Amino acid sequence: MATKTTQSNTSETSPTGASAPPAGNAGIILYYLENSRSQRILWLLEEMGTPYEVEIYKRRPDGLADSKLKDIHPLGKSPVIRANGRVLAESGFITEYLVNNFAPSLRPTGEQDLFDYGYYMHFAEGTMMTPLLVKLIFGMIVTGSPFFIRPISSRISASINDLYIMPNLSADFSMIESHLKTKAFFAGASLSGADIMMSFPLEMAVSRAGLTKRKYPAIHQWLERIHARPAYKRALEKGGGNYDILKK
Amino acid sequence: MATKTTQSNTSETSPTGASAPPAGNAGIILYYLENSRSQRILWLLEEMGTPYEVEIYKRRPDGLADSKLKDIHPLGKSPVIRANGRVLAESGFITEYLVNNFAPSLRPTGEQDLFDYGYYMHFAEGTMMTPLLVKLIFGMIVTGSPFFIRPISSRISASINDLYIMPNLSADFSMIESHLKTKAFFAGASLSGADIMMSFPLEMAVSRAGLTKRKYPAIHQWLERIHARPAYKRALEKGGGNYDILKK
Repeated sequence: MATKTTQSNTSETSPTGASAPPAGNAGIILYYLENSRSQRILWLLEEMGTPYEVEIYKRRPDGLADSKLKDIHPLGKSPVIRANGRVLAESGFITEYLVNNFAPSLRPTGEQDLFDYGYYMHFAEGTMMTPLLVKLIFGMIVTGSPFFIRPISSRISASINDLYIMPNLSADFSMIESHLKTKAFFAGASLSGADIMMSFPLEMAVSRAGLTKRKYPAIHQWLERIHARPAYKRALEKGGGNYDILKK
Repeated sequence: MATKTTQSNTSETSPTGASAPPAGNAGIILYYLENSRSQRILWLLEEMGTPYEVEIYKRRPDGLADSKLKDIHPLGKSPVIRANGRVLAESGFITEYLVNNFAPSLRPTGEQDLFDYGYYMHFAEGTMMTPLLVKLIFGMIVTGSPFFIRPISSRISASINDLYIMPNLSADFSMIESHLKTKAFFAGASLSGADIMMSFPLEMAVSRAGLTKRKYPAIHQWLERIHARPAYKRALEKGGGNYDILKK
């Protein structure tokens, strides 16, 4: 069952004093699944300051998403949002749509910054999440294997880790470390949608793929920078602390 | 070693009669890796009609990309392009950049079409490629297992297929089938960058994940529609027929 809460952003109260629709004129609703990529959209909504509602869905005992999410969007995943009467899925698309329509200040304007913005907007899911998800799946296979299979499943998992997962992730980490050595945020001197997108894979990499502070100090400084933002903290609270996919 | 060829689009010859730089003023070069996502960028370049060069790289015997690609971009993958003096990676970003800068007619203008365009631009890599890649990796694990491990690796692979890969892909296929029942292309009545992005996962799904014509006729009609385009055919020739990742 979904839990509904309303974000009361009083700055958006109707100037006539009439009561505004609960989620503002744009009718933004975030269908939030615990321990999922939807946390970063909650953060984005907090950064935007536009009124919104959030409906919280739980994972099933087997870890899959609440099947009620299929009533919202045919793929049954989260994040999914409703805005301006439309239902939107896909983190990168949701982020671009929300930024373009409600928070243009989260889209950089300089040529180089826009270039970096476009690249990292796609890189987060298009490149970096794949080895992280493969790592997650193999971890579950090893843990879920009967004891007499576990030596073999562990061996297969270790081999994929050495041949595919870690070489890819190490290249990603190094590229990002070099990039963040030269600027405070992914697309310049201030926060943008690219930081929102990159937050999930980087936090996952810290807890699950050896992205250490000693080896990657610039990435960790960026993480400290985003964690210190009031909107980031509010989003963690509003998600009900349901963000432990990041913990081992 | 890379093989270099130049696309001579004579419509771009300098009007003064002076010899233009080989890849046009934008200096577009595609660093093309055989049997990879770079095939769809070659197709996009052919649809654009802008002059470009292509450097063809081979895969190593172990299937990984030629390590010389790391000299072009730190992640050492393909597609990577050079355009306007910049190096671009990430299929979604490359597609958006090329369309926005050189082929605005491949970006729709209507509100609903632009919405679909933005969604499928991210969906192709953000959602659909992940289970396809996991399937590819498990296929390689089973094939590469010593005979005494193969029964177990096959069993693990079949279980991941049933629990994760096929439920996700079936939901994707059904959503796409419904979408393509109502329009000729992903973002409306004419080809757009969204079709370029969706071509790779859908062709891979036909050869490797049971996307049959009987069950998904609208998707197959769309495939026939893109395969009939002269630019698609020229791109296949220019890639030297190096596109057999799609064959089982």
